[in-house]
Amino acid sequence: MSPGFDRTDFRLDAATVVADLDELAQQSGGRFAGADRLAWTPQWLAARAWLRTKLGSIGLEPEEDAAGNLWATVPGDSDSFLIVGSHIDAVPDGGWLDGALGVLTALEVVRQLCRRQEPSSRLGVRFVDWADEEGARFGRSLLGSSACAGTLSPAAVAGLTDVDGVTLAEACSACGVDVLSTASAASFLTGAVAYLELHIEQGPVLLESGRLAAAVSGTFGVERHLVVFTGQTAHAGSTPMAMRRDSLVAAATAAVAIRQSAIRHGGVATVGRMTSAPGLITAIAGRTEMQLDQRHLDPAALTAMRDEALAICSETAAAFGCEVEILDIWSIPPTQFDPDLIEIARDAVAAAGDEYGPPVPSGALHDATEIGRVIPTVMIFAQSDPPVSHSRVEDSPPAALELAIDAYGRMVARLLRGDV
Amino acid sequence: MSPGFDRTDFRLDAATVVADLDELAQQSGGRFAGADRLAWTPQWLAARAWLRTKLGSIGLEPEEDAAGNLWATVPGDSDSFLIVGSHIDAVPDGGWLDGALGVLTALEVVRQLCRRQEPSSRLGVRFVDWADEEGARFGRSLLGSSACAGTLSPAAVAGLTDVDGVTLAEACSACGVDVLSTASAASFLTGAVAYLELHIEQGPVLLESGRLAAAVSGTFGVERHLVVFTGQTAHAGSTPMAMRRDSLVAAATAAVAIRQSAIRHGGVATVGRMTSAPGLITAIAGRTEMQLDQRHLDPAALTAMRDEALAICSETAAAFGCEVEILDIWSIPPTQFDPDLIEIARDAVAAAGDEYGPPVPSGALHDATEIGRVIPTVMIFAQSDPPVSHSRVEDSPPAALELAIDAYGRMVARLLRGDV
Repeated sequence: MSPGFDRTDFRLDAATVVADLDELAQQSGGRFAGADRLAWTPQWLAARAWLRTKLGSIGLEPEEDAAGNLWATVPGDSDSFLIVGSHIDAVPDGGWLDGALGVLTALEVVRQLCRRQEPSSRLGVRFVDWADEEGARFGRSLLGSSACAGTLSPAAVAGLTDVDGVTLAEACSACGVDVLSTASAASFLTGAVAYLELHIEQGPVLLESGRLAAAVSGTFGVERHLVVFTGQTAHAGSTPMAMRRDSLVAAATAAVAIRQSAIRHGGVATVGRMTSAPGLITAIAGRTEMQLDQRHLDPAALTAMRDEALAICSETAAAFGCEVEILDIWSIPPTQFDPDLIEIARDAVAAAGDEYGPPVPSGALHDATEIGRVIPTVMIFAQSDPPVSHSRVEDSPPAALELAIDAYGRMVARLLRGDV
Repeated sequence: MSPGFDRTDFRLDAATVVADLDELAQQSGGRFAGADRLAWTPQWLAARAWLRTKLGSIGLEPEEDAAGNLWATVPGDSDSFLIVGSHIDAVPDGGWLDGALGVLTALEVVRQLCRRQEPSSRLGVRFVDWADEEGARFGRSLLGSSACAGTLSPAAVAGLTDVDGVTLAEACSACGVDVLSTASAASFLTGAVAYLELHIEQGPVLLESGRLAAAVSGTFGVERHLVVFTGQTAHAGSTPMAMRRDSLVAAATAAVAIRQSAIRHGGVATVGRMTSAPGLITAIAGRTEMQLDQRHLDPAALTAMRDEALAICSETAAAFGCEVEILDIWSIPPTQFDPDLIEIARDAVAAAGDEYGPPVPSGALHDATEIGRVIPTVMIFAQSDPPVSHSRVEDSPPAALELAIDAYGRMVARLLRGDV
């Protein structure tokens, strides 16, 4: 129990957070003009400089860890602290909320704490802006948070290149980060008792169910594969149906069956791209590549989905006289958030005025995915409407932002009071 | 009954035809080096010049019609004549046989006739090398033969461009052809009583059934459509399966159903290309374009297949919450060859030593497709092994070439004798 922090009037001011969001968005033309804060670019550094100024103006001294994550700490009476934050980097032509909502709500947390001066709480609060959550330039997302969580293999990513051939190592170096020496960033987690992240849902679940905000149960694990079906290119006119080895039909059949498998398992599976060669209207496709993404919150269910999908691909290939090759692209295990923190988040959402509803899983990855492996973690989602993200049309109703920001503040306050 | 041509020893010399094929192939490096005779190019003109020399050396005077088709006539005792020929143009990196086999077999026909001097036959024989059968440069195949058949709309094709932006009209003009004034080429058909074309099958039917050659019953009609499914682009992780409007799954489902429909109708249907946007592994495809090619020998069955496929696309789109737009790309009705000529071709194949088998349909288009609309027409196919074409690996067994050339000569002789 904190000796000092027992005030019940600790509240975040949503209007301030939204004003900060708009001020940031002005750097790239305004709220719906498309965010331009790709990690490791001058535009991202400009956003970071703006953020440093904001932190400085409330009396905090920002510091950067070895992985480029930006920190600022309001000390408590002990060495223990909460971490509040998200990421300010954005995909090209991105939305105004995405990671920025969580960063600027975390800024409002430390602003409110600094304004009060005292009494302090037993726990400190550490603000963070994670570096390169999106991975939009080099294809490796959650970079800064995975460095802190100890799951990043720097040597495996240093050579990744952007469309111009610049390596991740070069881009980091230009921003003062040695990507091969990021492991020491983990020390910034020492003493952390919880990581709390606010984010928009980026999906339709809350909108469809009429909820403005919700606690998040965890983030889906992901299995990504490239499935290559090889049949026989042949003339579309002169090859009877029974003599075909049609790789596109094999892939199409597999895609439909994998969709049904995901529905049965309660996960999601997506084929977002199928590419056939020679790709002519007059030729049976001899080779079809299918990109497959599967996700589930439960590790065993995800494994079952993956195994079933790979079996479907093999069986379908055989049925159409094709060969199949299955290449691993990437996978990440599910992160299930801390049960006690989930309950606190549910309470906080209800206290802010929304229903006391079940936690929802996150199909998207977040920095909380990585940090949740090493520190008790929870997220709160605000409703997305339209339920899209990574797009300039991304938005959230004012009432949802207000309620979610309030709930996040109530969750912070309850943890600072220590009555959990 | 011809007063003069009753000789039973009229035979084509397959070895001469093959020697001519090899001599022509030497212009682009040899038999399997990839034919380089794209229509309206210097390489095509060089092949034409070689052909003119061959015709001149046997005493014929080649002449070109307004559409660029090359003719040479062995006169008969009447104004009536047979037409023998095919096309010498080739797709880039094409095969050594394709149209050249028919052209050089037709050359051997007129060579044998010229060698005999007399007695002549009642019927003359007109050699033809059709211009731009492949359409490989401007996308309009059967150009010269459709001009003769009266089915070409010159104004509709004059502006077609190649990859370098050259128009068809410009390319033709450089070869002395005014593409807007090709209609008069039709006069070269006046007096024609039959068109006979020898070609490799370009498919697996004869190979699979162990036949070296066969009469052809006709060429499939073709229906080509671009089917555009529009759903909703959304996050592959955060969009539950039940809330998706996945255009790729809709298209895949339609492609599989259309395949079954083609099997039921005894035709062929091919989806050779599906292209999705945004085309990312992390996004549900909001838009998928599917290129559909359907073929059948029977016009009513082709219409039924087309209507069924379009209904499948509409129903599938609705089932997955998508919109669908169906664009006509191109269509051509089936050509059924002349029943009497088909019987003569079957007899000729049997007389040359292969089984007396059923005629096979051609899934590929040929100049005979166009000429068969206006003149009694038949084709003979030689077995393809490997059963591919439009490729440098295209080939046909020596025994199949020998038998098919002999059968073609027997068919010509029978028509010249007039005992049909």
